[in-house]
Amino acid sequence: MNHGDWVRQNMRELSLSLGFRYTPPEEIESRLTKMRAKMEKSKMEGMFVVQKMNVYYLSGTTQDGLLFLPLEGKPLLMIKRELERARVESPMKDIIPLKLFREIPSLVQAYRGRLPKSLGLELDVLPVKDYFKFQEVFPGVPFTDASSILRETRKIKSLFEIDLMRKAGEIGTKVYRVAKEILAEGMTEIEFGGLLEGTAKKYGHEGLLRVRSLNYEAYTWHILSGPTGGIVSQSDSPMGGLGLSPAFPVGASLRVMKAHEPILVDFGTCYHGYQADETRMFSIGKMEQKFIDAYKACREIHDAVLENARPGEDCETIFLKSLQQAERLGYKDAYLGPPGLQTRFVGHGIGLELGEPPFLAQGHSYPLEEGMTFAVEPKIVFPGEGSVGIENTVVVTRGGCDVLTPVGQEIFQV
Amino acid sequence: MNHGDWVRQNMRELSLSLGFRYTPPEEIESRLTKMRAKMEKSKMEGMFVVQKMNVYYLSGTTQDGLLFLPLEGKPLLMIKRELERARVESPMKDIIPLKLFREIPSLVQAYRGRLPKSLGLELDVLPVKDYFKFQEVFPGVPFTDASSILRETRKIKSLFEIDLMRKAGEIGTKVYRVAKEILAEGMTEIEFGGLLEGTAKKYGHEGLLRVRSLNYEAYTWHILSGPTGGIVSQSDSPMGGLGLSPAFPVGASLRVMKAHEPILVDFGTCYHGYQADETRMFSIGKMEQKFIDAYKACREIHDAVLENARPGEDCETIFLKSLQQAERLGYKDAYLGPPGLQTRFVGHGIGLELGEPPFLAQGHSYPLEEGMTFAVEPKIVFPGEGSVGIENTVVVTRGGCDVLTPVGQEIFQV
Repeated sequence: MNHGDWVRQNMRELSLSLGFRYTPPEEIESRLTKMRAKMEKSKMEGMFVVQKMNVYYLSGTTQDGLLFLPLEGKPLLMIKRELERARVESPMKDIIPLKLFREIPSLVQAYRGRLPKSLGLELDVLPVKDYFKFQEVFPGVPFTDASSILRETRKIKSLFEIDLMRKAGEIGTKVYRVAKEILAEGMTEIEFGGLLEGTAKKYGHEGLLRVRSLNYEAYTWHILSGPTGGIVSQSDSPMGGLGLSPAFPVGASLRVMKAHEPILVDFGTCYHGYQADETRMFSIGKMEQKFIDAYKACREIHDAVLENARPGEDCETIFLKSLQQAERLGYKDAYLGPPGLQTRFVGHGIGLELGEPPFLAQGHSYPLEEGMTFAVEPKIVFPGEGSVGIENTVVVTRGGCDVLTPVGQEIFQV
Repeated sequence: MNHGDWVRQNMRELSLSLGFRYTPPEEIESRLTKMRAKMEKSKMEGMFVVQKMNVYYLSGTTQDGLLFLPLEGKPLLMIKRELERARVESPMKDIIPLKLFREIPSLVQAYRGRLPKSLGLELDVLPVKDYFKFQEVFPGVPFTDASSILRETRKIKSLFEIDLMRKAGEIGTKVYRVAKEILAEGMTEIEFGGLLEGTAKKYGHEGLLRVRSLNYEAYTWHILSGPTGGIVSQSDSPMGGLGLSPAFPVGASLRVMKAHEPILVDFGTCYHGYQADETRMFSIGKMEQKFIDAYKACREIHDAVLENARPGEDCETIFLKSLQQAERLGYKDAYLGPPGLQTRFVGHGIGLELGEPPFLAQGHSYPLEEGMTFAVEPKIVFPGEGSVGIENTVVVTRGGCDVLTPVGQEIFQV
């Protein structure tokens, strides 16, 4: 049997037997319909989608290629390498090989009969050198930013997507169950983190937490113990941890975890590209009272945020209310970071990427909508001593919100 | 103690006690000298370095910020978030806070007394929207591509860098030792991969294998068994594996590994940002003879490549010779991929990123130089059946090359 036949028959069969869920055609169709409505409003005759998660969202495959999405007519997926596999993975009808970048205009012309007069590109992530290449092969065509249209479409999740996020949450539940069993004195943060990562993978966790910007990286092994919980780093989060080196100055370190100190486990999981993010507290022996009190405050803030989270509620207002609550509880200077380095969000959207709309944050005044998914994570930081916090991923429902990460919220003392 | 004092004293002490190696000032100085010589040749008065690995290479820190490197005078590092930590991590003298992007010109003006008349930017990775922001705050200044200067400087490694890569290789040696102990019938590819990942982390492996392009991702859990070894995917490699879903269609899958089939373990490690990449073969019970023979051929090709690898040898010629050797050995249609999907390289440079110059590849006709580091990976693929291969990371020395991944090269049969 040749390679192509094997892919179409045996690979497809093998993948389905191992639980692969290919995006259904009606799901893709519904996403494309939403995209076109927004393109029409923006007077965009067509767009090229290049970024992996956007291509996956609109086509169902992440094979190397790019998607041409016209305002009218069917989309065209051009694949650079594994064409046969893209045809198995995507329900799209028109999937063709792409050999050279400069052939794109003639492929589009042959497909549609004419070239679009205006084109959208993902200017938020597209490298400049690729932009120049588009300008060269489409001389005189104006390019506008298509990234907000894509972000807006992706921010409301379908039932299909929510189900995949729930599955990611289920992997997290298994990870935290194992975490309680294996945490022991004498273990380093990174050893603990590595074992949790291995556990998650065994249950189908996909390992990379994708983010959407040049330098931003996300890790699952955020295990911070005692003083490392008070360390801030490159990422816009309340605490970064020490990490392993100046090249990776975030997350778990080689520090041996000690009894009675707070051990914060911020662990994200990923299933079919969809992420769930959650944080729980652990301790070896009883945690010092100061941290127990602060964690109680985090849980109260967390519960109040979820109480407020329903369609129509303003995201910035929810954040500002959480600030006031933290102040009332006596944690003004420790809430969301050490003094001078406090972050200005208590929640971030999540889905195919960590950090997508909505943001429960300063400057983000827009209403929550049904189908939005976000992680809420109130945290309290004591420089040099440690940090505590809780985090859950939720979906906004018609009348409130639903937690996708159903792990017990007590401190896990071993 | 306030947060800043704690970072300067206790965090620094803690990090050193856990093995952090901060880049020495003379190392940074030597890199900057090389950069300036290339900038002068390109008539570039200054450049802004934004991408994380380039900033790390030239400053020693990966804290969120950007580096201004003038042709004459000292560089200026502008940090957006954790200034105190950047000052601990980098030996640079001038490290200042950056609040708003639009302040960059006035900060540079205040520092140098005037603004540069021409500026370099990393156009290979810089997103278009950031490019527009630079154009807005530096009106009329011509921007040119600085990425080739950075790539050229980085491609020759110093003794400091080679030592870090050797340490990454040592982690790999420990991983393969454990791999022999834990591989067992009934285990899935991803379970095995997760355990190896956890083992590597325990020994200080940093988990993310950084790459330098928008959609390219690298994973350590490339465990391919039997038929999954014959599957190609999004990445430009001889085999991609099945992966876990259409969102992650590469690397280990949930397939249970079987006796007598080839199990390919392609595992990269990372220490202080520097990577080592290696591949070894495993089997449960004796591997089928067909694969044993093909693996023998891979080892012969591998040895011949390393025999040829010394300063002055042409990279493309080494690749083409390996093609001829594969043909002589009877593997013309299976070498480096299934028919029609064969890759055109037998080696790729490696360092802070997976896939940097030099490339032992078609179209890459330039000589090897002392201090270059690359991974050589001849592989043979049988669609639907499996694949075999070997990979090592080496450094080019004065008279030949030195292997940084010293693991036994026999098939590991358990």
